[in-house]
Amino acid sequence: MNGAETLIQTARTAGVEVCFANPGTTEMPLVAALDSVPGMRAVLGLFEGVCTGAADGYARMTGRAALTLLHLGPGFANGIANLHNARRARSPVVNLIGDQASWHLAADAPLTSDIASLARPVGWVREIGTARHAAAAMSEALTVAQGPPGQVATLVVPADVQWDPAGGGAPVPVPSAADEPDEARIAEIATATRHGATILLLGGDALSAAGLLAAHRLQAASGWTVLVETFSARIERGAGLPDFPRLPYFPEQASEVLAGAEQIVLAGALPPVAFFGYPDGRSQLAPEGCNVLTLSAPGEDGALALEALGDVQGAPPAPPVAPRPPPKAASGALDPATLGATLAALQPAQAIVIDEAATSGVAYAPHAAGAPQHTTLGLTGGAIGQGMPCATGAALACPDRPVIAFQADGSGLYTLQALWTQAREHLDVTTVICANRSYRILQVELARAGIAEPGPNARALTDLGSPSIDWAAAAQAFGVPGVRVDTAEALADSLTRALAEPGPHLIEAVI
Amino acid sequence: MNGAETLIQTARTAGVEVCFANPGTTEMPLVAALDSVPGMRAVLGLFEGVCTGAADGYARMTGRAALTLLHLGPGFANGIANLHNARRARSPVVNLIGDQASWHLAADAPLTSDIASLARPVGWVREIGTARHAAAAMSEALTVAQGPPGQVATLVVPADVQWDPAGGGAPVPVPSAADEPDEARIAEIATATRHGATILLLGGDALSAAGLLAAHRLQAASGWTVLVETFSARIERGAGLPDFPRLPYFPEQASEVLAGAEQIVLAGALPPVAFFGYPDGRSQLAPEGCNVLTLSAPGEDGALALEALGDVQGAPPAPPVAPRPPPKAASGALDPATLGATLAALQPAQAIVIDEAATSGVAYAPHAAGAPQHTTLGLTGGAIGQGMPCATGAALACPDRPVIAFQADGSGLYTLQALWTQAREHLDVTTVICANRSYRILQVELARAGIAEPGPNARALTDLGSPSIDWAAAAQAFGVPGVRVDTAEALADSLTRALAEPGPHLIEAVI
Repeated sequence: MNGAETLIQTARTAGVEVCFANPGTTEMPLVAALDSVPGMRAVLGLFEGVCTGAADGYARMTGRAALTLLHLGPGFANGIANLHNARRARSPVVNLIGDQASWHLAADAPLTSDIASLARPVGWVREIGTARHAAAAMSEALTVAQGPPGQVATLVVPADVQWDPAGGGAPVPVPSAADEPDEARIAEIATATRHGATILLLGGDALSAAGLLAAHRLQAASGWTVLVETFSARIERGAGLPDFPRLPYFPEQASEVLAGAEQIVLAGALPPVAFFGYPDGRSQLAPEGCNVLTLSAPGEDGALALEALGDVQGAPPAPPVAPRPPPKAASGALDPATLGATLAALQPAQAIVIDEAATSGVAYAPHAAGAPQHTTLGLTGGAIGQGMPCATGAALACPDRPVIAFQADGSGLYTLQALWTQAREHLDVTTVICANRSYRILQVELARAGIAEPGPNARALTDLGSPSIDWAAAAQAFGVPGVRVDTAEALADSLTRALAEPGPHLIEAVI
Repeated sequence: MNGAETLIQTARTAGVEVCFANPGTTEMPLVAALDSVPGMRAVLGLFEGVCTGAADGYARMTGRAALTLLHLGPGFANGIANLHNARRARSPVVNLIGDQASWHLAADAPLTSDIASLARPVGWVREIGTARHAAAAMSEALTVAQGPPGQVATLVVPADVQWDPAGGGAPVPVPSAADEPDEARIAEIATATRHGATILLLGGDALSAAGLLAAHRLQAASGWTVLVETFSARIERGAGLPDFPRLPYFPEQASEVLAGAEQIVLAGALPPVAFFGYPDGRSQLAPEGCNVLTLSAPGEDGALALEALGDVQGAPPAPPVAPRPPPKAASGALDPATLGATLAALQPAQAIVIDEAATSGVAYAPHAAGAPQHTTLGLTGGAIGQGMPCATGAALACPDRPVIAFQADGSGLYTLQALWTQAREHLDVTTVICANRSYRILQVELARAGIAEPGPNARALTDLGSPSIDWAAAAQAFGVPGVRVDTAEALADSLTRALAEPGPHLIEAVI
């Protein structure tokens, strides 16, 4: 075996089955190893941001490490934005990056660059020195990536490390279980929350069905306010599950919701901070003097911690979740409200909904709470262009579940090449483009910055309507059937058809 | 004036007129400043790689600093690949990157990351600490970027530095002239090359018309072999100019061409190295024992140095360049040969040709040597996805010249969003997609790596044909008229029409 083969073999033995790849010349031995080592499936992305976003979606849905194969510094750089989202989602992603042969680095050939400097901002990095160390390095990367909590791990593999003969294998990484909750800490939180207004903020793995039901039990027993973090990697939603409101996005609205809290208890969530700082604003959203208590940190079992807290409080078992009316498809012209209602009304049971709908998606979530149970994946790191790649990876992870990419147009234009991978791999992804033909959030932010009448440059930088994007043509370019609709009825018809037919579809919903 | 306004004002005073931008919330004061400071034109790219590639093309054609405005670490990361190309082209590019407000960095909000670590691999970086330092920082960035030699300079500007009040302006950077050639060095090279086989390798600014004619004079007088570096940022070509062969791409072919040289004289070029290292290969391409002499380094005036060397040698003035037959359009099925001939035959005088045609473009250059005089911009850093953005920037720099993007399909898919900017700005860019529906160079590299029969994963990772991309539909999606051709006659018809009509066009040439 050469170094490349031990890398792939070690990953394969650890259970990795898919490699999201866009390799180049410095990865040829790794490409060959994807065939010579049995059982690996290579999935090509036409752009590296597709590969890394798909790896993130795959990792979120399987909970297992997802592998990418990317080309040198510039190829890796193209994947950084979605690795940033994966980092914030704590998704276990392992990147294999070929580098120049170690003896060729000093020549500073045109494609040479400092890959480690590019990789450090998204997580753990290791440069492999010799082929003999390759297997152990992969084992360590998988262990680091899988956590818990999960993280992004990058292996920089010089070409000679790939083609040189390597020794035997390495210990196969055994995924660690999440830490058990700390009894003393739980008792302390039970005491601290006996008096005064308490808000329970859920995030991370506490947004599983078990975590949400444990929070429902606490809420029923104590009357606490329960909130969900603003952007979550993965949350289970729909009929039979409690529907807790999200912490609002804008800091002044979030502060208002948190006002009066004497304690904020965190389960899987980090202390709430503003997404952006504004003039005369502050970073922390918790009221001054509020006691912020961590029940479970990322990497700990949030559902177990919530149940343990309920036990210490002597809370009765969770009451049944009150049924909610199922959402109804709307009629008439499309706008965020009619779009959200119609999508929620038609989404099938067990759907996976990737929500990068931004301002166009605000009306959807309340409707979807009444839909059949489903999973929603969110934009954790704010780096746009995540939705369509993430949907691609989720569909590869869960071939038996329908996947819906609920996608803002401006963000979707970053990584629309994902459509091609969906077509090639015959994935059941239905992409709904919310075509408001602007960076609406920036128009809002301009107004918030006091610019009531944007000048021509500010208008040009926030408008996507001249010319308008023809999304149906874009879909056709990549081999995906596409259609444009501008009424709720037409959207319902198109959605029904797209969800019934196998393979990917795209619907441009003009709002 | 606030910090944002002093930044834009300083750039404007230094002659910067265009800002290639895709901003976000942390750049709102800079967006406002693009309107409040008169005389700046903001050009939106739908993806940051479009902005940075366009800035590179603009800088290559104007020789002046090009400005970008990008959003935080992930937005900047999306632009790194084309900044890597700009770095290798020594293009003066200044990036303005908004960061979180300085007091908000510690909160580690979702979009926060280490921007400087991302930016260092492509050049100079400065984080601006206070609004009072903003103008001086821009002045320094422009000075550093403009060199000579040119480079990429990145300013990280926290949001509060943008909105805080700033003091007065800063000294306007005065572009430095290129260094004059060193007389002693030239005399030494004249002596060293009196005997033995000498190869003159031209690169960088020695590929101007003046540099090429000076090299022609030396060749006529001394009989030296003259070569051009493999990938050049910008070279003048066509009737009236000498046509020197390029140093081949693959190292064994390059070594063969250089074999027997006792001296290699570099004018604007770096010592030749292999693009990639191969097993049992070496980095340096010059034969063992060959004396590599630098006549002019990047940042020095190569044409002046070549003329000075001719003077020391007592070379007569350059003889006229022998006329070459003009290229003739081909007929029949399209392949790299008929495509190259037909494009060369039809390209108008003063065309700017961006060559990212990769393996499909090899037959074009010899034909184009007989075309009317034109400028060719190459893929300097090997980071694919440069052609269409670079063409966009070149067209903005030179509105009176026709621009042709001669584009490989696999590379073009990286940054096809550039078409939209071409449509919005009504740019005279004709994109010719060489649709071989594969990463052909990687199929070649697989064979070179000894993989005679690629397995299913290797085939999947190098094939773009299942499904085929419909480039005409992709063009339509972005507002550009597109057509597919598969004969030389149809290509000629489409090219004639595209070049005659104003605005952008795309031709998918199936080969």
